[in-house]
Amino acid sequence: MNHAPRSIWTLARRTERLRPSSIREILKLTERSGVVSLAGGLPSPQVFPVEAVAEATARVLRDQPREALQYAPTEGFGPLREWIAADLATGGWMVPPSQVLITTGSQQALDLLGKVLVDPGSAVGVEAPTYLGALQAFAPYEPAWVTLACDAQGPLPDALATPSAGGTLRLAYLQPNFQNPSGRLMPGARRRALVDQALRLGVPLVEDNPYGELWFDAPPAPPLAALAGEGAVYLGSFSKVLAPGLRLGYLVAPPHLHARLVQAKQAADLHTSGFNQRVAFETVRDGLLQRHLPAVRARYKAQRDALIAALETELRPLGCDWTVPAGGMFCWVSLPGGLDADECLPHAVAAGVAFVPGSSFFVDGGGQGMMRLSFATAPAARMADAVRALAGVIRLAPSRHPTGMAP
Amino acid sequence: MNHAPRSIWTLARRTERLRPSSIREILKLTERSGVVSLAGGLPSPQVFPVEAVAEATARVLRDQPREALQYAPTEGFGPLREWIAADLATGGWMVPPSQVLITTGSQQALDLLGKVLVDPGSAVGVEAPTYLGALQAFAPYEPAWVTLACDAQGPLPDALATPSAGGTLRLAYLQPNFQNPSGRLMPGARRRALVDQALRLGVPLVEDNPYGELWFDAPPAPPLAALAGEGAVYLGSFSKVLAPGLRLGYLVAPPHLHARLVQAKQAADLHTSGFNQRVAFETVRDGLLQRHLPAVRARYKAQRDALIAALETELRPLGCDWTVPAGGMFCWVSLPGGLDADECLPHAVAAGVAFVPGSSFFVDGGGQGMMRLSFATAPAARMADAVRALAGVIRLAPSRHPTGMAP
Repeated sequence: MNHAPRSIWTLARRTERLRPSSIREILKLTERSGVVSLAGGLPSPQVFPVEAVAEATARVLRDQPREALQYAPTEGFGPLREWIAADLATGGWMVPPSQVLITTGSQQALDLLGKVLVDPGSAVGVEAPTYLGALQAFAPYEPAWVTLACDAQGPLPDALATPSAGGTLRLAYLQPNFQNPSGRLMPGARRRALVDQALRLGVPLVEDNPYGELWFDAPPAPPLAALAGEGAVYLGSFSKVLAPGLRLGYLVAPPHLHARLVQAKQAADLHTSGFNQRVAFETVRDGLLQRHLPAVRARYKAQRDALIAALETELRPLGCDWTVPAGGMFCWVSLPGGLDADECLPHAVAAGVAFVPGSSFFVDGGGQGMMRLSFATAPAARMADAVRALAGVIRLAPSRHPTGMAP
Repeated sequence: MNHAPRSIWTLARRTERLRPSSIREILKLTERSGVVSLAGGLPSPQVFPVEAVAEATARVLRDQPREALQYAPTEGFGPLREWIAADLATGGWMVPPSQVLITTGSQQALDLLGKVLVDPGSAVGVEAPTYLGALQAFAPYEPAWVTLACDAQGPLPDALATPSAGGTLRLAYLQPNFQNPSGRLMPGARRRALVDQALRLGVPLVEDNPYGELWFDAPPAPPLAALAGEGAVYLGSFSKVLAPGLRLGYLVAPPHLHARLVQAKQAADLHTSGFNQRVAFETVRDGLLQRHLPAVRARYKAQRDALIAALETELRPLGCDWTVPAGGMFCWVSLPGGLDADECLPHAVAAGVAFVPGSSFFVDGGGQGMMRLSFATAPAARMADAVRALAGVIRLAPSRHPTGMAP
């Protein structure tokens, strides 16, 4: 066998922007038994509706096997698109099914939006912190990142007007519901103010909503997209309410943009598995989610409560702080002055607990003193031990600013 | 509801390269009953191993439901990667499973390769004609197309040395087995000559092999990648041997390139459905394909024979010509002088038969006098009627060069 020199392959310039995900590298580490993962945003496997999926799958393969196993339209399976439009309508947002595009997880929706909307140098606004996967999806299209100033309610409307890279933002990427990683929920008044400002300035909004159904006490305000008309694209997902292993997400886009996204999707993977789309439709069509979601919410709320209780006991005395999320999967924790979460991580994994360092979620080098803790994966009974292990690591960690140096 | 002006969305420059696929637009037309489709490359649904898939699916959801429905590694399901490496080894090509990356159909592999390898202006060599889906996948990365001169055996080795755009080819994209659309099979000697030339010139090869298992009388020669070492990436697919609705393909790449492709895939869709990967593995692990493929080959061979017989009866007298493919799904037909296949298509669909015009498969405007006929989808018994309808359309079609004008 000949061995061509490595240099036979010339990489595209955009590959300089591709970076391995620390989340997924950590996930690999924590697959070994004995580590409690507060790292990945993995749904609790205890809440997968296994029986309902198994029954739906058996029906699909009994009643429509050849349709399910054949090539299918790029736009998605018609009845599933209709179900999604009807589901959004129950939240008060009317969209025609023709504006829905089924994607291979909502991660693919981010990739398609990057491909269709982002030129090298385009100003793309993101929250600080923001979802790591969105940074990864957009990065190869070489945007100029613009960090949007935020408060506890989300991005400040005026932040849309001040892109540091100059010119209008090509798009602003937002997660209004239980944001990954901050857990933040945007109130209705902030949503209205943001949409008004976006429409006034001509800033298109990309609204990502993977966690909206995971509310604990009250559902979130209606989506930005319901207020923004053709000024927003909306992303939804079956990963958190049904099962991520099916890789089913969707986007809702204005017609002329939808047509371009369909073309981009056709080039990217022809279509999302029609088998999985039919399985998902058969699983949810008779109202499974309405019956199933209360149990999911109750479990995550209990796990959040266990995590917060453990943080109070173990990390409050060390000077840590956090916000208490009203839904979703994540708690955002600040370390006491000078501690570096990236440096703590290997010690934490050695001590049997994993988290994601905050620096992963910033485009401009912030977040060293922050950690994202997921309360979705680990059962409530394990939270106390996990946080105790974390406290041990924090107690022993050297400050980034040793005594005697600048604070 | 506010209505933002359409211009709020600025499209990226690369979207100028996105074009709707005439194949898929035609597929939509031909979904109405009464049209015999010789257009799409859809496998015959009669050959889907429905029972085996149903049994495998039931096993997966009984024995490993929570693993199958959870997030999974980007690289793919380990046992499926090992199965693929073992399957390639039976053809004489030894690759470690770590070089296999599972993709969401082999279409996604093309997209990832475009993303990682193609800069705007990169010279990308393609056969003439070539696979339309590859043109669509690479196009948004803005390559400079280079048409490789071909004969009946495939691209001429010297064609790799003469990119009209200047400089070395960033990659050459080839389908050596029963090429889509020409049906051409590359003999072993040509493979060796092409690989030798590619290695000498430093031209990386992307070898796409969706149809290799669909041989009728003898299997094809070993893949180019088996000869080229780290000078080739190989693409395979479960769509033609198992079922396209699962959206399962794979690529085999040299380690340093594999790592980049994994990063690009993570950004594109995190991972391919772990449910589907486990279903596919459970379906094929005990040798199902070896038992199943002879029936698939026999059916496609019978359908090819029926198509060729109908062509002899109906189209030979009209001055058409074609080659007889030794496998795969496609027959490539030339129309008599001056006829334009694009102009014939709407008349053909009205007459109840669909095909894909040859111009879809060229980057430089060739192929107007050619048609791709698929013998995979329609049953043998319907070929005679379909080709008779086509003959009627050809008989009535106006020449592109009306009498009295230049030939």
